Amino acid sequence: MALSQIGLVGLAVMGQNLSLNIAEKGFPISVFNRSYEKTEAAVARAQKEGLSDKLRGYKDVKDFVESLEKPRRVILLVQAGAPVDATVDNLCKYMEPGDIIIDGGNEWYENTERRKAKVEALGLRYMGMGVSGGEEGARRGPSMMPGGTAEAYKYIEPIVTKVAAQVDDGPCVMYIGDGGAGNYVKMVHNGIEYGDMQLISEAYDVLHVLGGLSNDEIAAVFAEWNQGELQSFLIEISAIIAAKKDEDGSSLVDKIVDKTGAKGTGKWTVQQAAELSVAAPTITASLDGRYMSALKDQRVSASKVFGDLGLKAPAAAAGVDKKQLIADVRAALYCSKICSYAQGMNIIKAKSEEKEWGVDLGGLARIWKAKSEKKEWGVDLGGLARIWKGGCIIRAGFLDRIKQAYQRDSNLPSLLVDPPFAKDLAERDAAWRRVVALAVTNGVPAPGMMASLSYFDTYRRERLPANLVQAQRDFLASHTYQCSSAQRDFFGSHTYQRTDKEGWFHTVWDENFGSADSITTSAYNR
Amino acid sequence: MALSQIGLVGLAVMGQNLSLNIAEKGFPISVFNRSYEKTEAAVARAQKEGLSDKLRGYKDVKDFVESLEKPRRVILLVQAGAPVDATVDNLCKYMEPGDIIIDGGNEWYENTERRKAKVEALGLRYMGMGVSGGEEGARRGPSMMPGGTAEAYKYIEPIVTKVAAQVDDGPCVMYIGDGGAGNYVKMVHNGIEYGDMQLISEAYDVLHVLGGLSNDEIAAVFAEWNQGELQSFLIEISAIIAAKKDEDGSSLVDKIVDKTGAKGTGKWTVQQAAELSVAAPTITASLDGRYMSALKDQRVSASKVFGDLGLKAPAAAAGVDKKQLIADVRAALYCSKICSYAQGMNIIKAKSEEKEWGVDLGGLARIWKAKSEKKEWGVDLGGLARIWKGGCIIRAGFLDRIKQAYQRDSNLPSLLVDPPFAKDLAERDAAWRRVVALAVTNGVPAPGMMASLSYFDTYRRERLPANLVQAQRDFLASHTYQCSSAQRDFFGSHTYQRTDKEGWFHTVWDENFGSADSITTSAYNR
Repeated sequence: MALSQIGLVGLAVMGQNLSLNIAEKGFPISVFNRSYEKTEAAVARAQKEGLSDKLRGYKDVKDFVESLEKPRRVILLVQAGAPVDATVDNLCKYMEPGDIIIDGGNEWYENTERRKAKVEALGLRYMGMGVSGGEEGARRGPSMMPGGTAEAYKYIEPIVTKVAAQVDDGPCVMYIGDGGAGNYVKMVHNGIEYGDMQLISEAYDVLHVLGGLSNDEIAAVFAEWNQGELQSFLIEISAIIAAKKDEDGSSLVDKIVDKTGAKGTGKWTVQQAAELSVAAPTITASLDGRYMSALKDQRVSASKVFGDLGLKAPAAAAGVDKKQLIADVRAALYCSKICSYAQGMNIIKAKSEEKEWGVDLGGLARIWKAKSEKKEWGVDLGGLARIWKGGCIIRAGFLDRIKQAYQRDSNLPSLLVDPPFAKDLAERDAAWRRVVALAVTNGVPAPGMMASLSYFDTYRRERLPANLVQAQRDFLASHTYQCSSAQRDFFGSHTYQRTDKEGWFHTVWDENFGSADSITTSAYNR
Repeated sequence: MALSQIGLVGLAVMGQNLSLNIAEKGFPISVFNRSYEKTEAAVARAQKEGLSDKLRGYKDVKDFVESLEKPRRVILLVQAGAPVDATVDNLCKYMEPGDIIIDGGNEWYENTERRKAKVEALGLRYMGMGVSGGEEGARRGPSMMPGGTAEAYKYIEPIVTKVAAQVDDGPCVMYIGDGGAGNYVKMVHNGIEYGDMQLISEAYDVLHVLGGLSNDEIAAVFAEWNQGELQSFLIEISAIIAAKKDEDGSSLVDKIVDKTGAKGTGKWTVQQAAELSVAAPTITASLDGRYMSALKDQRVSASKVFGDLGLKAPAAAAGVDKKQLIADVRAALYCSKICSYAQGMNIIKAKSEEKEWGVDLGGLARIWKAKSEKKEWGVDLGGLARIWKGGCIIRAGFLDRIKQAYQRDSNLPSLLVDPPFAKDLAERDAAWRRVVALAVTNGVPAPGMMASLSYFDTYRRERLPANLVQAQRDFLASHTYQCSSAQRDFFGSHTYQRTDKEGWFHTVWDENFGSADSITTSAYNR
């Protein structure tokens, strides 16, 4: 019996769907799962879909491995963490030098790098591949972000190129970079999505509370926005959600508790931004928004505390022109979204430089377009077509512009200064400020929009008041706890640079403090 | 020759000063340093200060260790990281079961926990002690935050209680908690300081740019503020900095480059907040502010890009009433400061609960008052007295109120709802909003004040638009990449809670998507 061209381990829905997708594209595939029922399920589905000649299930790892062409290629779709380690160890018993393991899960990039080093010591090759598109994407064509052993990619390229979603400018897959680069860009992609969700909820809140728009009105507004620069799956589904009625005909969204959770990727993105010295305030605000949403009981009692002190809950602002407000909020949302994507791309840029991954940001924007083109699926797929279109969290048009931005200048310091985006921001600047000022004045929290605006104002500011902070640090360094003389030299926080002279300077800012300082330097620092 | 009661390793300025302080308090001390010159320096200083009978220097570790009373107590003041590991290993060769090592450096708390486990395996005890007060503080009386092996504390308590700064309500030291608790609270203390510095620089910026105040006027304003609820070393030195003239008589602060750096503790504080699901937007904004200040070249070119597009740099706002603006900015700064401290205390609270450290937040506020009382030092110390007063970054009065807040309610969910702070916030609410709205409208970035205000507005909001986010997640979970069925069950992101019924719900939001969903559930999830 002929050997399979590829193997897949982990047959939850994602794994089943991806294996059927691979089989459907004409690649014979062997599948394995720890519990055999899921393997049987996959085989049964292959039968039902007329793919049984291309998909074979195995009960035993050894048989599974031996059923594969060399160099063997095995994709893992098992729970991130310990289960991946166990699966890798299990496979390594039977795989041989040159064979390739590809982890397709949402894994922390350092785990991938750790495993890569481990299996490379055995002569094997290892890749971490972000897979985006969910269950349907896995079955019909996902966006794939493979990273890891570079020379291993050519062995999976023919397969993933066919299996990935196909859009106007090619298949939604490219080699991302070495080590855990594939997992890393997927992590940031999720962080960017946090930002989109938070910003839309703020737009909804401002329209609802300050504009007095009903859920149906908001649904209509979102549906209209979805035809333009804001088009995205999230805007589309938000329109559907806002319009959705409960059995009794009332708005369902009003009956949903205002608490939401967070997964690892959003948190990791925020921690990585701090680690890399990259400001990502919009993405951080979206994570904080989820954290604070969970404090429902505290918020309820705080609202009473401040209500008793005369602070009312926000309500429709007097004399608001609905049409104007809708236009302003649309502008504020779009500008904030640009800031959020700029932050995410800069996190990837910084990490890629640190690790020398050489991530192609323009290419990344291209493959993130996965499933954003309707035509791939034709009419026969009916409703599904809408899912493929929506399956991409980020609108094709918006990503096209990001792609073009980085094609124009691969070292673009920030999307904010890409000429077309800069023009958009400048045109919407006044409206953006009107929305934030209205929210501020009326007590509606819009942390994402506010963080985006102060990010923009900070970035476009030639001179910041950081000169005062640096002077404070120069002052503190000589007198307070922060600074051993070793730290001083190490961090250079003891001195400042001048606008008018070269070099580093230290000032004795005050005679009283100064006298102490001179004591310090003469008597202590010998 | 009698044995010393305590030993100290690491004789940079901090270590020399702390050992002299200990000797001066009547505790015979042995000191050691890797390079002997520093030991000689310490001994020479002891001689000069008439303490030579109490301080003895050693050239050899073995002799040093053997010169100590049992259980031996050795304080380390060496560079954090590898040097501490090397020193600990070196000491362990000669120390015996029951002996105690106390790391007084700015160490990452997990390193302390790792070393604690390592030396406890040898029967030794280990503590990590945050020491705040810098060189002068070490010599005259620091704030000390010892954590680690609980039963070890009683052996150092008599010494640190005398050595620590003495304020009206006692010595500035208390046992913080097990493991790395002492390092952890010191880390957050530094993060809080980042917030203070950023907020003051924003106040300076608004007054300078929008109010048109000169540096001398701002110096006078800060000096006045320093007499009231904002009194702090940072406000005091900011007044001095703003007033400082260069040789040519012009303002020195204007000549300082607007770039500033960051140390580990601020970054760690932000990453820990994310890790603990605690929102800390003010502290994060202060870290981001430093990161973006460093992008000077990018900011300069961005200012040109947007200038060419018609966005002017912020300038004095028309029709601003200076007196009113000064009062408003004072209120905005104070309210924002309360938010920043609330965030920092909540990070410590969350970590203390996770690790079961039982950190006494009220007690912590008390010991952070170190050196904030002038009277301790009397007139003879002249200028130094001002340093002791200033040496504390945080004003005694403000910390007294935080102490009282936690004494009233040790489980206070947030400082924001402590009645006196809540009253302050409510009284200043309108002024705070005026400042932020003015900054927003005129393009002055005030990220710290804005983040604080949206933090406040989020926290006091009974109902947030998180219901929309949760509905989006419920929708996405069935259709996009984020969600394997395992993740669904694990994260519960697939469902939502209702305001009117118990339990978790999932909605087929749209027939088109829904049909796909029903395929998914029937055919895929078996």
